[in-house]
Amino acid sequence: MRIARFSIDGNVAFGAVEEDGTGGTAAGLVLDIIKGIPYADFELSGTKVPLSKVRLLPPVLPNKVVGIGRNYAAHAAELGNEVPESPVVFLKPTTSVIGSGDDVEYPSFSEDLHYEAELAVVIGRMCREVPRERVKDVILGFTCANDVTARDAQKRENQWARAKGFDTSCPLGPWVETSIGLEAVADGLAVQCTVNGEQRQLGSTSDMVRSVEDLVVHITEAMTLLPGDVILTGTPAGVGPLSVGDEVAVTIEGIGTLTNKVIKRG
Amino acid sequence: MRIARFSIDGNVAFGAVEEDGTGGTAAGLVLDIIKGIPYADFELSGTKVPLSKVRLLPPVLPNKVVGIGRNYAAHAAELGNEVPESPVVFLKPTTSVIGSGDDVEYPSFSEDLHYEAELAVVIGRMCREVPRERVKDVILGFTCANDVTARDAQKRENQWARAKGFDTSCPLGPWVETSIGLEAVADGLAVQCTVNGEQRQLGSTSDMVRSVEDLVVHITEAMTLLPGDVILTGTPAGVGPLSVGDEVAVTIEGIGTLTNKVIKRG
Repeated sequence: MRIARFSIDGNVAFGAVEEDGTGGTAAGLVLDIIKGIPYADFELSGTKVPLSKVRLLPPVLPNKVVGIGRNYAAHAAELGNEVPESPVVFLKPTTSVIGSGDDVEYPSFSEDLHYEAELAVVIGRMCREVPRERVKDVILGFTCANDVTARDAQKRENQWARAKGFDTSCPLGPWVETSIGLEAVADGLAVQCTVNGEQRQLGSTSDMVRSVEDLVVHITEAMTLLPGDVILTGTPAGVGPLSVGDEVAVTIEGIGTLTNKVIKRG
Repeated sequence: MRIARFSIDGNVAFGAVEEDGTGGTAAGLVLDIIKGIPYADFELSGTKVPLSKVRLLPPVLPNKVVGIGRNYAAHAAELGNEVPESPVVFLKPTTSVIGSGDDVEYPSFSEDLHYEAELAVVIGRMCREVPRERVKDVILGFTCANDVTARDAQKRENQWARAKGFDTSCPLGPWVETSIGLEAVADGLAVQCTVNGEQRQLGSTSDMVRSVEDLVVHITEAMTLLPGDVILTGTPAGVGPLSVGDEVAVTIEGIGTLTNKVIKRG
């Protein structure tokens, strides 16, 4: 199931993305409004609205976004870094989260803004110290993320809270896909980034240095994850700059496409 | 005014800390329950409960906690670090926040847990790109913080999300003091840490490398702060280890004392 969060006529709701039977194009997609919230028992209302009539919102309301650095060897190498001995764990604040179709605002303190296409894990249950074999039980699903990074600030500043945590630096969406399992991620989902339609990144989740299981175990050794919390699993090689006016799109096999335009902050 | 958050008989409320007229000891303090929330217009209800009858909670519900590293020259030096060219900004997750009287759980991945007594700024208004002269307008008040740190993990791990973000690593309290101004902070408030009653840190906020104004300007250049968000302004020299069973107390002149016991996580 694909679970979107959206607004229509000023109301906010979760909905399941379904085809209306007219052919599977974007124009033929509808949202079946969810009664309740996706983190508990819920049912579909049967009330459907066309996807084209709504504004998609970030598909989750995270309490925190946990990022992972240098989790693809080829990406670590392209920035001159070693693969770290233990995962590089950082946080992005909730104020950085935007949805598909929202604008990324080029930050005033940077002149080298980069895209980073990433698979995002969406947590479904409150959890801590999760044993490896239980990781699958705490995951609601997966979505696309762009871990937008002020590369110059990241190099200048010892900790990455500003470089990776400025407003609009965490596009998530377009929805949460709940039918992908951890085996499919390990086998490899294609992670692609395009800028103005040109491919810039094309990697596979099979190349992650640490698996989703490793990451959940490592993070929850330290901190509780709450329903809606998000883990960004690192970006493959091919990162590069964004300019004002660019349209950047992250597509992950089996999930969908997250699209954002870069605008001048102001 | 001192604003506490507390629970009594299963109900949670904010209240103003007042003396009951019997002499100003802790036993003579009462909480005047607040109607509304402290981030908007509010009034005191006149209904008072003894402080001794309530459980103090973290005095704020932050959306994010922004930490600052190496903001006292003597502390940077004691860990072998230079004073950084720009402030070191990191994030602690909301799941790390506890109140006065709550227990700090010694994390399983560390064998070198340290206290760090700090002045905490509590934000009162949603703000971004705050001009220096408006900083005073976005601050609700100040409280005491302990930026509890797994020093070994901090040294091992490139980013500090686990070392400074594990559950219970952010004691805040006992309440928010709203009557302290930025001049008093610049003139110097004593920041003290004791472990089992023995003094370990004694610094002054007048020794901060970057002022509260500098920090708010620097942080909000990148990210929006929301009412209840907290900025930890860095720790003075004298950091050192904590052991299971220790009682650690942070006292800041004009605010009060934040006390927590260290227990084994389990």
